[in-house]
Amino acid sequence: MLTSLLKKLRPSPNLASIEPLKPIIKTNIPGLESRALLNNLETVTQDFRTVRFFTDYEKSAGNFIADADGNLILDANAQSSSLPIGYNHPEFVEYLKTTYMSHSIIHRSSCALNPPEDWPEKLRDVLMPLAPEDLNELFNSCGCGTGANENALKAAFLWYYKNQNGSEPTEEQLKTTMEGKAPGVPNYVILSHTGASHGKLLGTLSASSASADAKLDFPAFNWPTAPFPKLKYPLENFIENKGIEAQALEDTRNLFKNSPNPIAGIIFEPIMNDGNYFASKWYYQQLQNIAKEFKAAIIVDETNVGFGASGKLWCHENFGIQPDIMTFSKKAQVSGYFCKKEFRPAKPYQIMNTWCGDPLRLQLLEGVYKIVKEDELISQAGEVGDYLLKELMKIQGKKGKISNIRGIGLHIGFDMPNREMAWNFYRSMLNKGVHVGVSKENVIQLRPSLIFEKKHADIFLEATAETL
Amino acid sequence: MLTSLLKKLRPSPNLASIEPLKPIIKTNIPGLESRALLNNLETVTQDFRTVRFFTDYEKSAGNFIADADGNLILDANAQSSSLPIGYNHPEFVEYLKTTYMSHSIIHRSSCALNPPEDWPEKLRDVLMPLAPEDLNELFNSCGCGTGANENALKAAFLWYYKNQNGSEPTEEQLKTTMEGKAPGVPNYVILSHTGASHGKLLGTLSASSASADAKLDFPAFNWPTAPFPKLKYPLENFIENKGIEAQALEDTRNLFKNSPNPIAGIIFEPIMNDGNYFASKWYYQQLQNIAKEFKAAIIVDETNVGFGASGKLWCHENFGIQPDIMTFSKKAQVSGYFCKKEFRPAKPYQIMNTWCGDPLRLQLLEGVYKIVKEDELISQAGEVGDYLLKELMKIQGKKGKISNIRGIGLHIGFDMPNREMAWNFYRSMLNKGVHVGVSKENVIQLRPSLIFEKKHADIFLEATAETL
Repeated sequence: MLTSLLKKLRPSPNLASIEPLKPIIKTNIPGLESRALLNNLETVTQDFRTVRFFTDYEKSAGNFIADADGNLILDANAQSSSLPIGYNHPEFVEYLKTTYMSHSIIHRSSCALNPPEDWPEKLRDVLMPLAPEDLNELFNSCGCGTGANENALKAAFLWYYKNQNGSEPTEEQLKTTMEGKAPGVPNYVILSHTGASHGKLLGTLSASSASADAKLDFPAFNWPTAPFPKLKYPLENFIENKGIEAQALEDTRNLFKNSPNPIAGIIFEPIMNDGNYFASKWYYQQLQNIAKEFKAAIIVDETNVGFGASGKLWCHENFGIQPDIMTFSKKAQVSGYFCKKEFRPAKPYQIMNTWCGDPLRLQLLEGVYKIVKEDELISQAGEVGDYLLKELMKIQGKKGKISNIRGIGLHIGFDMPNREMAWNFYRSMLNKGVHVGVSKENVIQLRPSLIFEKKHADIFLEATAETL
Repeated sequence: MLTSLLKKLRPSPNLASIEPLKPIIKTNIPGLESRALLNNLETVTQDFRTVRFFTDYEKSAGNFIADADGNLILDANAQSSSLPIGYNHPEFVEYLKTTYMSHSIIHRSSCALNPPEDWPEKLRDVLMPLAPEDLNELFNSCGCGTGANENALKAAFLWYYKNQNGSEPTEEQLKTTMEGKAPGVPNYVILSHTGASHGKLLGTLSASSASADAKLDFPAFNWPTAPFPKLKYPLENFIENKGIEAQALEDTRNLFKNSPNPIAGIIFEPIMNDGNYFASKWYYQQLQNIAKEFKAAIIVDETNVGFGASGKLWCHENFGIQPDIMTFSKKAQVSGYFCKKEFRPAKPYQIMNTWCGDPLRLQLLEGVYKIVKEDELISQAGEVGDYLLKELMKIQGKKGKISNIRGIGLHIGFDMPNREMAWNFYRSMLNKGVHVGVSKENVIQLRPSLIFEKKHADIFLEATAETL
């Protein structure tokens, strides 16, 4: 059934013409050239320590990333989930060639103050068609997912305050705000899932608990976390999952009930990017109900798993939930949030930055989304994902070693027995020409571009079977 | 003397050829077209409330911004201080035409993971030559000044913790970090100036106190503020300034002494962008000494006032101080911080984001800085600024109404009697074809591009004299 579905999809002949049939591996990865560049990078920046290899972006093609040593690697990580249509997509290159975009390259506009004339039209025609139902209000962040999330938290706080107290501040509020005290500075908190990761600035880091290393030594807001149900996958195969979810929901409800500080909002990813965990539709819908019951804002973080790879434009659509605020970034080229109209702050400048948008990258989004739609890449992502899951289950049956295979669309993850084996798997795959992601201690995860087809899945599956 | 200095500067004939001789005003501003666009924008985003007018970026030229109604306005605000070389600078357009930059437009690279091959070279050749003395370590933020500042605070916390406790965390630290308690979550605080504005995300907002409106209803870290000396300008004309500065320093020293929580760092702008206030060399050097005495990190925020407009590349150079960390953004095209090597975190991922840089905008910086150097725009900014100050003093002498004229280079501000008169001045100037900034209650301030020459200063001065 899956195979026949895949056949119906329109192939991208142009794209196929630039891609190699399979990875081309000439050296160990990172090779000599990447290592030499790493030594150079070390002299100027701390970031060198996270670098896997250096990239030749000109030679990269479609799903294949070219490294500095002449290797051509199937990229199932795709710039940490931020590359929507692969490398040098011919139709996108054509779009860029024929699109007039010089003014947005020559000067970045402060869209807060002096936006370009076509700004309202571009927002309406390019960005707003991507808005989930009822989220007709937009805030443009400055350029990263963390900023989008942190501004979304701000929107939740303002909305919660307004609901509790009305929007006109008293003299006492104004005064105490400047003194850092209540009532001007409220004791509101944000609830996130234990193990979640919503960003690394000081607010979002307080709503993140994926690792102690990332939080160590920084002041933090003492915000609560709700247990994320520890489930077995595939979800429908394990009847005990329902009880585990019910318990997590009960605990969450108790957190709301007993919180010493008012919970202004709950933030979660529909698939926890760090570990690729997700729960059932029922769980997310109940979670939504609990938040509503306690009048907390529902913030869905789609910065990592949004924009098509789940088989839906936004990943939360898979669960039939309706957020109050939904953030986006990465594959979407621009970052910000959509929200309900009632989340518009009472006054300007309450949520604000110099840029409030990026006209250049909005033009990139326009070209990207055109291809995503025309090539039906979102439904393809869903189908290729289903195929991958099915085939991975077969490999698990034959080889063991991997467990808890789970996924929605191309967001796929599975567990290795331990950290060491996960990193061995990562390295072995890389030297076979397949670049995967590693998260948590022992999770292998895929975050390819939306142009990842069955043939690419097969390269990954073959390398996986060999490696295991 | 000033006039003869200005004559020595090489003119930019190309630039002059695209600029009008003076503003061209056809309608009230905002005109009908801008108003109509504003109505469209209102339907999708909250940001519409901050918009002054819409811009025709193609018709904008040099120091003149074209609006949607066909007006050509001398822009002394320049995208909130973020436009280094004006609009459509002919040499920059030429640079863009002849520079190969397609790969950085086609796909944004995760420089944290898979940077482009030329990344180490570009950082070394383009960004590092801008580093202040001894600040040989770089962190690339994701794209805004707030992010740069907030990551700089993180760097200060890590460094302070390491100095107090060493860098290897104990089991207890790791455990308490996840529980949101000390010692994993330290009670460190950041000291900022009363009235400062370092950003609007939750960490930087806690170090900002420019207005209650911006802080209302948001949780905040209860961080202390040091009084900024309320001085009279020009500084050297008022002998009472020294005593006021001494008192502010004494108060600051007492804050350090008596703070219930350890002060990990002090953050300040060399010119407070919000209000254009600054103190004497002596004050900043003493402030630096106090921070050193108490082993706090010195973070200088150059996101607004850095990159040349002060007559020095970095504004703090005017005061002979040496920060531990210096942040940049806006005119610099890219954002991040330079710091001393000892501020490199012990482990990777402690300060981190997906992008860790923006190769596209780094290429823009390369072209921008080439023009800044070749046309000697930084020294020109200093000289034109001196001229402006002198001429404004003459206007003050004749007209009264304005007071406390102050400036360093092109960062110039003065007080109007009250808020209403400040905004009347703003509107009247705009309708004469000059776009200025308004900050605090009643401060008029200039933030033009570095290509602002004497002839542009004269247009501003003439309109000012007429308006008053």
